[in-house]
Amino acid sequence: MFGIIVSKVFSSPPFSALCNTFFFKSLSAKRAHVCFDSIVYFNSTTLLQENTSTTTMASSPKCLGKECSAPGPVPNGQIRLYSMRFCPFAQRTRLVLTAKGVKHDIININLVSKPDWFLKKNPFGTVPVLETSSGQVIYESPITCEYLDEVYPEKKLLPSDPFERAQQKMLLELYSKVIPYFYKISMGKKRGEDVSTAEAEFTEKLVQLNEALANKKTKYFGGDSITMIDYLIWPWFERAEMMGVKHCLAKTPELRKWIELMFEDPVVKATMFNTDVHKVFFDSYMDGKPNYDYGL
Amino acid sequence: MFGIIVSKVFSSPPFSALCNTFFFKSLSAKRAHVCFDSIVYFNSTTLLQENTSTTTMASSPKCLGKECSAPGPVPNGQIRLYSMRFCPFAQRTRLVLTAKGVKHDIININLVSKPDWFLKKNPFGTVPVLETSSGQVIYESPITCEYLDEVYPEKKLLPSDPFERAQQKMLLELYSKVIPYFYKISMGKKRGEDVSTAEAEFTEKLVQLNEALANKKTKYFGGDSITMIDYLIWPWFERAEMMGVKHCLAKTPELRKWIELMFEDPVVKATMFNTDVHKVFFDSYMDGKPNYDYGL
Repeated sequence: MFGIIVSKVFSSPPFSALCNTFFFKSLSAKRAHVCFDSIVYFNSTTLLQENTSTTTMASSPKCLGKECSAPGPVPNGQIRLYSMRFCPFAQRTRLVLTAKGVKHDIININLVSKPDWFLKKNPFGTVPVLETSSGQVIYESPITCEYLDEVYPEKKLLPSDPFERAQQKMLLELYSKVIPYFYKISMGKKRGEDVSTAEAEFTEKLVQLNEALANKKTKYFGGDSITMIDYLIWPWFERAEMMGVKHCLAKTPELRKWIELMFEDPVVKATMFNTDVHKVFFDSYMDGKPNYDYGL
Repeated sequence: MFGIIVSKVFSSPPFSALCNTFFFKSLSAKRAHVCFDSIVYFNSTTLLQENTSTTTMASSPKCLGKECSAPGPVPNGQIRLYSMRFCPFAQRTRLVLTAKGVKHDIININLVSKPDWFLKKNPFGTVPVLETSSGQVIYESPITCEYLDEVYPEKKLLPSDPFERAQQKMLLELYSKVIPYFYKISMGKKRGEDVSTAEAEFTEKLVQLNEALANKKTKYFGGDSITMIDYLIWPWFERAEMMGVKHCLAKTPELRKWIELMFEDPVVKATMFNTDVHKVFFDSYMDGKPNYDYGL
């Protein structure tokens, strides 16, 4: 498994993930108001070994905003992810890239002040976006993940059986109706609103999800090892405590077991933030001033 | 290319599409208040040859409502579609089944009075739903279409290149934001509301769709022959005149040419209704009493 960290400053990868964290931390102080369009490579094997505290992501440079020029072309033999460090949708793609050991760089985008060149790549203006060295652009998180699984044959995450693949897509469709509740409840609470109805509906939907897992009689949603659907569902459960919705899992024992197992997955550990870090970002987002570069 | 129509009354298919139309027309008069759970087979080659008037669908039995018992198991070697004759989402699956010549039967569902056994198959309660002879169930129109294309290798509709496949999925995502406008405008008009803002937004989105086609420089959205994305986009344009939104196509010459070409496609002809028929159903739907069996 090999990922990379490169910057325009240093052209000789790899540095270890830890070194790069220190590097970016010290550099970020000096460049507080400067565009930071370095490209970060990392050796993901090292990352998986070292980054076990699950407190920081090691590979994210500061976000690029409206005033920042476009990064150079994607180097041959690798793929680029346009991301935002705290975005759960983009995390889906980061999980897949990491799980499959795909050589990639990451450009983070300031989503409240998007560069024009980014909007040309994705008319929706959202992350994740993938870009290949031949200039092909792919957006929408499930599409990026499926594309990666098709193009990079190592460690297939989608099942080979068409019906099992369809099952994962149907479950994703069900889950897409669950996601809005994470925000409805957490934002409503923060605004001091009554969220009891939303909590009841959310609980009901989580019970459905729990049933899907219980009926499957396996540790994960696609079987006894992690597959694509687990990574597509995961990012919001990483944030469940921070979003104040953990109590809605009271009636979902299988789902709680799944969450525990997912927290132990090295790929999850390599892409996640802890609850405190998520909370700082979410609070800044709720205050209308998202701190995309928090922790760098 | 071979599709089927069977009923519990007649066990020896195939009848020609025309015969079946006559059969169901005469039978429906006698069975006005009786559940009609016959299964319709058709020889789709015959259908494509005979059903050129584009006025009627030849293969749809009366819909099954809450009081109707479940149909028997799906016969070996074929697949079942739960549908509603006028549903544009289910038409996507009918188009793919027909284009690929997949042996299938169709059970139409009364969507305002759904049978419990149907809700057990698809918790969303929507059509289309596919069911295999081994009891596997697949729902959500794009998932059913992709499943069919994967399981039945004849006449592949999705491109083999992963990026081209991703492009079709991204275009479908864009189009999913266009679909609500067909309803917003037509329903708003019928209610006497001011729809000028919706029309302006719709026109803008159609121009984006037109650009996608113009940039491609091909007759269809996926190339110079019809592919999956054309069938996924099509059903709403079949209804554009009936829905009173045709004038919004004024600035989209490539899209208008595409519509003309699609109307000439034998598969479209085999699955479509004409504007007058669509109008009768849509009016009944708007009046709160959808006439699912109109024309049978």
